[in-house]
Amino acid sequence: MSEAVATLKELCGPIWNLYSIRSLLYWDQQVLMPSGGGAARANQLAALEKISHELLTAPAFLSALEKAEAQDQDRRYLQATRRAYDLAAKLPSRLVEEKARVQALAVEAWTEAKKSGQFSVFLPHLKEVFRLTREVADHRGYKSHPYDALIDEYEPGMDTAQVEGLFNGILPSLVQLVQGIAAAQPLSRKVLQQSFPLAGQHLFSRYLLEQIGFNFERGRLDQSTHPFCASSTSADVRLTDRLDENLVTMSIFGSLHEGGHGLYEQGSPPEWNGTPLGGGCSLGIHESQSRLYENFVGRSLPFWKAHFPKMRSLFPDQLWGYEVEDFYRAINHVQPSFVRVEADEVTYTLHIVMRFEMERDIIAGTLDPADVPEVWKDKMEKYLGIRPASDRQGCLQDIHWSDGLIGYFPTYSLGNLVAAQLWSKLRQDLPQLDEQLAQGNCCSLLGWLRDNVHRHASALTPNEVIRGACGQDLNHQPFLDYLWDKFGGLYGL
Amino acid sequence: MSEAVATLKELCGPIWNLYSIRSLLYWDQQVLMPSGGGAARANQLAALEKISHELLTAPAFLSALEKAEAQDQDRRYLQATRRAYDLAAKLPSRLVEEKARVQALAVEAWTEAKKSGQFSVFLPHLKEVFRLTREVADHRGYKSHPYDALIDEYEPGMDTAQVEGLFNGILPSLVQLVQGIAAAQPLSRKVLQQSFPLAGQHLFSRYLLEQIGFNFERGRLDQSTHPFCASSTSADVRLTDRLDENLVTMSIFGSLHEGGHGLYEQGSPPEWNGTPLGGGCSLGIHESQSRLYENFVGRSLPFWKAHFPKMRSLFPDQLWGYEVEDFYRAINHVQPSFVRVEADEVTYTLHIVMRFEMERDIIAGTLDPADVPEVWKDKMEKYLGIRPASDRQGCLQDIHWSDGLIGYFPTYSLGNLVAAQLWSKLRQDLPQLDEQLAQGNCCSLLGWLRDNVHRHASALTPNEVIRGACGQDLNHQPFLDYLWDKFGGLYGL
Repeated sequence: MSEAVATLKELCGPIWNLYSIRSLLYWDQQVLMPSGGGAARANQLAALEKISHELLTAPAFLSALEKAEAQDQDRRYLQATRRAYDLAAKLPSRLVEEKARVQALAVEAWTEAKKSGQFSVFLPHLKEVFRLTREVADHRGYKSHPYDALIDEYEPGMDTAQVEGLFNGILPSLVQLVQGIAAAQPLSRKVLQQSFPLAGQHLFSRYLLEQIGFNFERGRLDQSTHPFCASSTSADVRLTDRLDENLVTMSIFGSLHEGGHGLYEQGSPPEWNGTPLGGGCSLGIHESQSRLYENFVGRSLPFWKAHFPKMRSLFPDQLWGYEVEDFYRAINHVQPSFVRVEADEVTYTLHIVMRFEMERDIIAGTLDPADVPEVWKDKMEKYLGIRPASDRQGCLQDIHWSDGLIGYFPTYSLGNLVAAQLWSKLRQDLPQLDEQLAQGNCCSLLGWLRDNVHRHASALTPNEVIRGACGQDLNHQPFLDYLWDKFGGLYGL
Repeated sequence: MSEAVATLKELCGPIWNLYSIRSLLYWDQQVLMPSGGGAARANQLAALEKISHELLTAPAFLSALEKAEAQDQDRRYLQATRRAYDLAAKLPSRLVEEKARVQALAVEAWTEAKKSGQFSVFLPHLKEVFRLTREVADHRGYKSHPYDALIDEYEPGMDTAQVEGLFNGILPSLVQLVQGIAAAQPLSRKVLQQSFPLAGQHLFSRYLLEQIGFNFERGRLDQSTHPFCASSTSADVRLTDRLDENLVTMSIFGSLHEGGHGLYEQGSPPEWNGTPLGGGCSLGIHESQSRLYENFVGRSLPFWKAHFPKMRSLFPDQLWGYEVEDFYRAINHVQPSFVRVEADEVTYTLHIVMRFEMERDIIAGTLDPADVPEVWKDKMEKYLGIRPASDRQGCLQDIHWSDGLIGYFPTYSLGNLVAAQLWSKLRQDLPQLDEQLAQGNCCSLLGWLRDNVHRHASALTPNEVIRGACGQDLNHQPFLDYLWDKFGGLYGL
């Protein structure tokens, strides 16, 4: 390592360690912080934001970065560092700090509003978050649409027009599929429409995570209102799920989803912890991992052939008289519904499209946050044919906007597309996969993902990961093929 | 507020927020971090240490401090800030870093030595820690004894001669009391020598904490190997206790002890969170609060008149046939024992005296760390009349020296002295206290402590707190009076 690169790495260490601490504070806030701790936590997060931003944008950092860039070494490290520097340097400290504090308070207000169902409690915070986020877009700069500057943070290289293009490519075929399914004989959900004791659900979530290869010596599973994965480092990856006695699928697919994120994070090389190379390279790639485990694996028949017996042993009364095929059909029941995180594989994208349109328009200034509740209902009616009766079922369901995660929703759909591309390729590479999954063996699957995705962490760009793993660029066809193949079969279309 | 003070406060904010975050990371590490997370956590803590030290000792900070000091405003704030600055600025970065690294290794070696009982594994590390701690003392400077510079960090204004004076004042009378008790009829511990189910113990700990006024909306109770209180801010105060089926007193008095710390932290004014004025003013004052709740309140008959019925409802089989007086006598059983943390109120101070003498002499260079095991045994025999058979029972029992906490032990005894002074004064001010406690009413007690101790947080020096609350300086007589009065009565001396 040259001296210039060594100096740069010395400067990066504390900064990326602060980022890893931030993720722990966030986890703590969602999982177990006392209710009165919100304001003080907001100040802590603001301090971390301010300090890391100042360290990253200090003249000494830029000069170390430029000196290192002048040499032809550690190209990946320098690329990742340069990207972080450019993202940060364009924002004034004042804005970074204010945004962190406003968001921490907005999350508290959202939590309260979600409990009481009162959008008015949340509205002033929502306005503030969007106002500051628009400021961020203006500082960063953009070619065509201010939203470009936001999505690029989560998905390097992606812009508004490209997202619109992907959605336009998917929508006609997707709507056709939804209509075909609506006209077909529905799949019975009877097996799921029962009460499943929470203790058993928790045991089963842990069991499933162990089965897919999540390492509990370098991670945890807890409960929170909104399931998530917070990775402080690859040695400390924390998942949460949500348990509801009357909705056993929530804990099963929530755990598998977060487990997919967790496996990606645990697969990041340990020597990259606390450096710009550690962790996932984009939210889209991250979501490809969670979706792959939640849906492509987790809602497949082979997977349940292996694990339905275990579930039956935990819930003998509920599952008495049901076969694995009944369960498989029930978890693949397709029906337009109000809540994104509970949506089926087919209608999920429609939830994303409407959120994308709304946040894009608020950022552009053409939609007033005060109108969000009504517009939400209208769009839901347009895309899904149903109208939520309350804001809890409607615009208060997601934490994202409160937390300043704007430009983030489209990455969920990108995740589905990438997952389908990876799934198609890995099934070619692993011809025995179905048999292995049916025997409860998830190792070769995880091995393929470790080799082709996880081990690259943030050292490759999203496109490099996709191209490297699949031999082609991002495209939507494998996703549509997968949906038509699977649900065409299930519904006899 | 003048501009100079405003500028200084702006600079302090991030630093003291980092300190509050550090305390959360420490809590997390002890309570729920996955086992594999240690190395990454060490890097996070090192980053916090490095950044906060750099921010605090930056030339810009000193110049802001001096400008603010030139005005006659916010005297308390400036005093607290100046003290923090001086403590940090006198140490070269090199020493801070080396000490942190050496201590991390020493803690590991101590853990191993404690397991195997082999002092020789720990000795080289112990030597290094003491060598670097002596360097710290030399950098900080001192009037008469290098140990002065160490104790002052934990107990502002205290020095070696003063500690020696206090101990010399206590020892003759204390030894006389211990001998008197040894010759008397022992109190029966039979009621405690039973198995108490853990679930009930946990409920009871929570109940006791609620009774003494601990606010669970701004705090938590969890479990850890070594009980402690970690206060991130007054809005987020976390206690732990340790549960053992065969040692119910551990959870009861552990919770009350940590609860006393917790009440002090929750009583710090919220507007001082994340500033040099927030939190406890010294370890001695802190320990006065924990000892007051653990012993003066928690081992008193009135307190148990109120709460023994609740305990009986949780443990009906174990407590059947016992009266509150039986329980009161059992929890006040006095007997010399090897382990400090399990010592009774009377013999506890003797454990501290011998540790103080040894660390003082090692720092002065008159005691060789290699001689610690034998000197430990000799002193234990001299003060407590018993000789440990092993180093595990002897000089390897405490983590403090391995972790560089030298000058810390005396504050445990200071806590007892201050608690006795406060107890004596508050009983004059609250003549109904015994009746109130016997009715389960802990409010006027907490109110008195809030007014006289808690609300001052770090804005007063320890001596100012004592003088303000008690109208006299620190002195040892109330402690001796309390012990003779209570144990003289219990043992018929």
